[in-house]
Amino acid sequence: MTATTTTYTTLLSFSSSTLNFKKHSDIQRVVDTIFKIFSKYGFVPHSSASQELSAVSGFLHLYLSPQGSHVLLRGYGNGLITLDIHEISTSTSNDIENSCGAGRLFTNKEIGDLEVEIKKCLSFLESRSLPAIRRGRSVNPYYPTVDGRLVELDVREVVYEVKSKYQDIMIVRSESLGNILILDGDLNMGESDAIYSHTLMQKGKTNYQDKSCLVLGGGDGGLLYELLNEGAKKVILVDIDEEVISACQQYLRNVCHDVLDSRTGPYHQIIVDDAYKYLKDCLTDGVKFEYVLYDLTAVPVTTEPKTESLTSGSQKKEWEFLYETIKLSLDVLSHGGKFFCHATALLAKDSLLQFEGMLSQLNPNIRWMQHSAFIPSFHENFLFFFY
Amino acid sequence: MTATTTTYTTLLSFSSSTLNFKKHSDIQRVVDTIFKIFSKYGFVPHSSASQELSAVSGFLHLYLSPQGSHVLLRGYGNGLITLDIHEISTSTSNDIENSCGAGRLFTNKEIGDLEVEIKKCLSFLESRSLPAIRRGRSVNPYYPTVDGRLVELDVREVVYEVKSKYQDIMIVRSESLGNILILDGDLNMGESDAIYSHTLMQKGKTNYQDKSCLVLGGGDGGLLYELLNEGAKKVILVDIDEEVISACQQYLRNVCHDVLDSRTGPYHQIIVDDAYKYLKDCLTDGVKFEYVLYDLTAVPVTTEPKTESLTSGSQKKEWEFLYETIKLSLDVLSHGGKFFCHATALLAKDSLLQFEGMLSQLNPNIRWMQHSAFIPSFHENFLFFFY
Repeated sequence: MTATTTTYTTLLSFSSSTLNFKKHSDIQRVVDTIFKIFSKYGFVPHSSASQELSAVSGFLHLYLSPQGSHVLLRGYGNGLITLDIHEISTSTSNDIENSCGAGRLFTNKEIGDLEVEIKKCLSFLESRSLPAIRRGRSVNPYYPTVDGRLVELDVREVVYEVKSKYQDIMIVRSESLGNILILDGDLNMGESDAIYSHTLMQKGKTNYQDKSCLVLGGGDGGLLYELLNEGAKKVILVDIDEEVISACQQYLRNVCHDVLDSRTGPYHQIIVDDAYKYLKDCLTDGVKFEYVLYDLTAVPVTTEPKTESLTSGSQKKEWEFLYETIKLSLDVLSHGGKFFCHATALLAKDSLLQFEGMLSQLNPNIRWMQHSAFIPSFHENFLFFFY
Repeated sequence: MTATTTTYTTLLSFSSSTLNFKKHSDIQRVVDTIFKIFSKYGFVPHSSASQELSAVSGFLHLYLSPQGSHVLLRGYGNGLITLDIHEISTSTSNDIENSCGAGRLFTNKEIGDLEVEIKKCLSFLESRSLPAIRRGRSVNPYYPTVDGRLVELDVREVVYEVKSKYQDIMIVRSESLGNILILDGDLNMGESDAIYSHTLMQKGKTNYQDKSCLVLGGGDGGLLYELLNEGAKKVILVDIDEEVISACQQYLRNVCHDVLDSRTGPYHQIIVDDAYKYLKDCLTDGVKFEYVLYDLTAVPVTTEPKTESLTSGSQKKEWEFLYETIKLSLDVLSHGGKFFCHATALLAKDSLLQFEGMLSQLNPNIRWMQHSAFIPSFHENFLFFFY
């Protein structure tokens, strides 16, 4: 058990329409008020760091506490004030502290009270304070959306972590979302995300009774569970990473239930293999499926080059892999068969355009349908294609 | 059109297990490396702000750019380093800038490149950079969850704002979630949130055909729309705030569709009144309903005291209001009637305990059922009760 330092950075901002920070007296009023408040907590001005900035209108003051926490106050010509409260918490526990953080100088409530006090003292028009941001060696709770928005999950601990032959596999526990599978740092599937499988397979809108299905990827077992539940007579699941399957079998029970407990059953078979290779084999052997469900990770995880043409640039390789696997998927469909796949987040517009372009290149006669769903652990809308 | 100053604060952190910041040479190596990188962008050290801290192990350096942006570098004894990049963007446009912010010193990609460069130069074990946080006079995109986690919505503009007799009504536009109703700063209902109404009314599990229903609150029209769709023969909606109804009629069309266009129809009636008073009147007049759906905002919005006993403390008042309205709701149910209500976020554990306690006080013989759903615009699970 080693002592870990975590810092909590809380960002506040205030707006005033009456103060003019080109005037020394207005600056002084703000600085005196803020200093008076923080001096109660032991903060002292940091030598000559505090000054009116010469190069720009505005000012910058820095306060330090004996424990090494600091507060940075900035003002701008138009009356905007930002205040960064930087608290050090040294914990000797192995537990993952939550964002209310034991060992912090201020509680969340005290930060809120500070905000109200400052706003009132200086008659500010508006104020805002955000929840403290944790920095340091702790479980990462921050999973930004594809369009770069900040989202903090209530991830408290890592329940499983292993580096497989293909990728970093991590399963974290979220209090509200259940366990979540993270592959190479990307959110992949949470116990809260049944809607992901339901939307991909168009559950309730597609008849799976007695159908033969091929699931590409899908090592979390979500699609396999749903397809068996819908009465499919044969489901083959092909995933390259055995360690993903066994991690999900153990820690993602709300997704896979018991379908990963056995590699084969009366209606299913789990094959650990490269989906591309498996599709090739199906073509050679003349094996066809009524439905193919494409659930490979957005970025292909295999490290081997797939075809001779896949030689330049990893992005190019990924798109070529996608193109080739989907092409083969369509080839192994029996007459009148259906194909279902995920695309990516709805706000990844460039990728989606490229994806749609790729689909129409594959076969211009196919009329693709799409459906989006808000995936809880992703905290955003995700798009699916099917026909 | 006035110039507005927005600041973008980007928080980075790095971990090293080999550096020891009690040693001057290790500090110097980090400081030299970071300074070399930022000096390329015009940053200069801020006079004597840069120093090894005497009171604590570690150090603090501050760099300023001629445009007034600053970078604050902190190191800690155990090898944790935090870097706050504070960029000023002065925009003269009325448009709400997005978090990729025009006028920023660095693009998101450049920040990512900086992170990688620093990590590599100093052989750091781990690094993390979060999306920039916007501060200043702009539309607020940050709506923390009840348990204080930071969630940034893709809110780009305010499409409607008015201060009614009862509350601040704001409708903001989210690119991925549609328009969202915000009452007194709290997320209330988004165009993405059909699941809210579906879960509250137990759609698909409850037969509304030819039933008489009373909706308390629900001025967004979501429940009214769904109930009429399910074939209810009479739906009375009682909401106190006429301005919420007209805002939603205009801007929340994906929620209410056309049901708010007319105050009365063959199967519905919208009454602008205090729900508590309306329930009292029903009791007096002997009016009964087969189903009552409680959709008043969690915090009662009326400014009038409801009963003589409601005299001390606003929290107490709110709970008494809840208790009294739910009690009356049960009283106006016809024999065999059903009652449906929302509670609050699943992670607001204390409130939920209090809520459940209240329900069991009302009538210990009722066996309440509950159901939770992940509400997209809330970005968290919400709990509903029914019996």
